[in-house]
Parts: sequence; structure tokens; C-alpha cells
Amino acid sequence: MKAVVVLSGGQDSATCLALAVRRYGADEVAAVTFEYGQRHALETRFARRLVRRIPAIVEGRPDARVQHKVVKLGFYGSLTTNALMDPSVKIGRKPGAKCPNTVVEGRNAVFLTLAAVWAKTLGATELYTGVSEADYSGYPDCRGVFIRAQQKAIRLALDYPIRIVTPFAHRSKAYEWALAAKLGILDVVRKETVTCYNGIPGDGCGECPACRLRARGYGEWMSSTKTTR
Amino acid sequence: MKAVVVLSGGQDSATCLALAVRRYGADEVAAVTFEYGQRHALETRFARRLVRRIPAIVEGRPDARVQHKVVKLGFYGSLTTNALMDPSVKIGRKPGAKCPNTVVEGRNAVFLTLAAVWAKTLGATELYTGVSEADYSGYPDCRGVFIRAQQKAIRLALDYPIRIVTPFAHRSKAYEWALAAKLGILDVVRKETVTCYNGIPGDGCGECPACRLRARGYGEWMSSTKTTR
Repeated sequence: MKAVVVLSGGQDSATCLALAVRRYGADEVAAVTFEYGQRHALETRFARRLVRRIPAIVEGRPDARVQHKVVKLGFYGSLTTNALMDPSVKIGRKPGAKCPNTVVEGRNAVFLTLAAVWAKTLGATELYTGVSEADYSGYPDCRGVFIRAQQKAIRLALDYPIRIVTPFAHRSKAYEWALAAKLGILDVVRKETVTCYNGIPGDGCGECPACRLRARGYGEWMSSTKTTR
Repeated sequence: MKAVVVLSGGQDSATCLALAVRRYGADEVAAVTFEYGQRHALETRFARRLVRRIPAIVEGRPDARVQHKVVKLGFYGSLTTNALMDPSVKIGRKPGAKCPNTVVEGRNAVFLTLAAVWAKTLGATELYTGVSEADYSGYPDCRGVFIRAQQKAIRLALDYPIRIVTPFAHRSKAYEWALAAKLGILDVVRKETVTCYNGIPGDGCGECPACRLRARGYGEWMSSTKTTR
């Protein structure tokens, strides 16, 4: 095994999966999905489909798929809470707050550390994650400075040369849409991923911050393709 | 809240708990115990007792106790395996191996990250952990260099000024016994903690590496007290 992809079932991680498969082949890639009591537990259902759909397209053989593990972190809501995990809270950003109340404290730190433990077991040394500090919402654990510190901590914890790969660290959503088109997975990403905070697949609710970011990027990409034609 | 103690139910973490309570008082301290499918699941039972016994002694009031949370990480054995989690494996060290087969890959990285998420929720900025690189068995996630990297990763992930406190980083077991005596918790540590890899409380099996380390430290401390009398 070469790489483990942290697969949430959203646009970013689905595209990461395609990149990892294109680079190493489906047989050398594994994916892990974390369930942490989010509103949109259906993300897992989408992730389970993506580990077949994406490799089949990228490799051009219908039976291609990547090994997939779902890890249940049911306790997460007892350590911290936020609007994604608590249906009674309205999603939004308080005036003056650094980031929206959808932040799940420490999420990427926990996901990357656990994914690294599994990667070592599999003999894989790369971790793919779709985090971005370009089109993001101010979450501290999406910053490059965090990813570098986390990589160092994991390497020391496991005494193992993990590399955290962040293909979209400085990329816009528009770039991701262009890449999806190039990889042949545009339809899958559009219709078979779930990014929406309200858990509506594909184009989503259209109202929440994640849907707006996604739609704006799509619009930007569409405009740019028209310009360059 | 001031501090969260990672409490395994063993000698090191029990003594950490006493130090935190002595410093901040029981009302300002919380403890968290992680269950990860270890052989000695009874550690949790001991931890539940320690969060009452230790504060009662240190504060001198029988009703003192610290808030305690038990977090179940039942998935851990699906990410990695080792002799502590698999009863069919004999505990030991393979010739040439850096550390015994009791290493639980990434354990301290996961525990500290999750404890930090809870600490932020509680408003606590200190995490106490009993790791030591003096009397240890070569586990990479007990080294000071790891702890410093982990602290940095957590601070960036949470955008929160966590400090990881390691009172025994460079201390021997003999020192810990002396400290336990000074704190008045010698009997509790001797009889009501479980350090043994085979899950036998108190003095344990006497055969496994953890029991030998503990017994040797106790012997060294006893000799030193005789010398200084």
C-alpha cells in the first residue's frame, strides 16, 4: 500500500481519492471515513459508493475499488459540540467569531493521527487530505502551518516517515472543478458527493456556507471555460 | 477548569492526578480515561476509583473528587494490533526490535489530541500525562521530542494555548515512589493502581516488563530511604 485517503464523502476528498488512484493505482490506495456524529451521517453512504465509482472511472475498469474502512468516533460529541453535531443549533457565524459554529474542534488532528496509525499497519507512507486554506472558512486545522506541525508529531509518535499530501492546500474550488473535469469524474463529484452542511447531496441546500463556496467555485470554473473557448 | 489529566489507572497517571489536584484543587481538575480494547479493561475500574481516592487524600476531605470521563475507542484494534490488545500474542520483545510488542501505535498522540479537545471545551489549558523517557521501554510516543511536537500540533489545530505537562519526563520510578510517599498516596498507588501488562492490580504478575520496572523502582526507593536514615 502506498497511500491512505481521508474520505469524508465530499467534493475535496473525492477528488483527492481520484488523484491518489491515478498516481498509485486502486490496489495501492486505501480510504478511511470517520463518523463523528455529524448531522450528515449519509456522508458515509456516499463514501462507500465513491471507493468504487472513482477508481472505476480513473482506472477504466468497472471492478476497480479501493480498500475502505469506516471508523466510528461516536464519543466526539461528548468532548465538544458544534452546529454540525447538534441539530438544535442553527448553522452560522456569530459576529466577531473567527470561524463559523460548524467547526468540529480538532477534527483534522484526530483524523490524520488515526489514519496514520492505519497507514503504518498497511505499510503506506502517504496520507491524502482535502484540506485547503484558500477557499476555507477560517478553521484552524485547515492551515498549512497546522498540517506541517501535525506531520512532524505523527512521524515522531510512530517513528515512521508519514507524508501528509494536501493537493488543494492553496487551490480554489474552481481549480478543483477543473481538475474533476480533467479526471473524468465531474458528474460523480457533482451528483454523488455531499458537501452541504444540511446533508443534502449534490448541489445541496444552496444556502449554507459550504454550498455557497461550492457553487461559487463551480460558477467561476464555468465562466473561465467560456472565456478560454 | 485548569487541567485535564490523562488517567490510565496506572502508577504514573495516578501520581499525575495527585500533582494536578495538589496544584489546582479537585474542583479545577478533570480526568479522562481511554478504553482502547486493552487486555486490562479493568484499568477503567481502577481509574474510576482513583478520581475519588486521590483527591480525598490530597485535599483531606472525603467527598473531594475530580470530574471524570471515559472515552471508548473500540475501533483501535482495527487500525493496529499489539500484544496488549490481542490475548493470543505473548508479551515480549523480538530480537533487534526497538520496543516490545506491547507498543500501541500512536496511543499517546490520540489520547493527547482528544484530551485537548475536551480541555478546550472545559476551558482548561494544561494536560497532565505520566509519560517518561527515563524508565521507559523505547516507545517513540513517550519521548520529549514527540511531546513538544504534539503540543505544537494541538495548539495550531485548536488555536488554543494548551500546555502538555509531563512531571515524570526525566524521572525514574524510584522518584515516583518517593513522591507518592510524600503526597500520602503510597498505599493507594501500591494497591489500587494497575500497571501490569497482564492486568493484575497492585504488585501485578511480577514477570512482565511493566511489573519489573515498577518493582525495580520500588526497590531502589526503599534502599535509598534506608541509606538516608
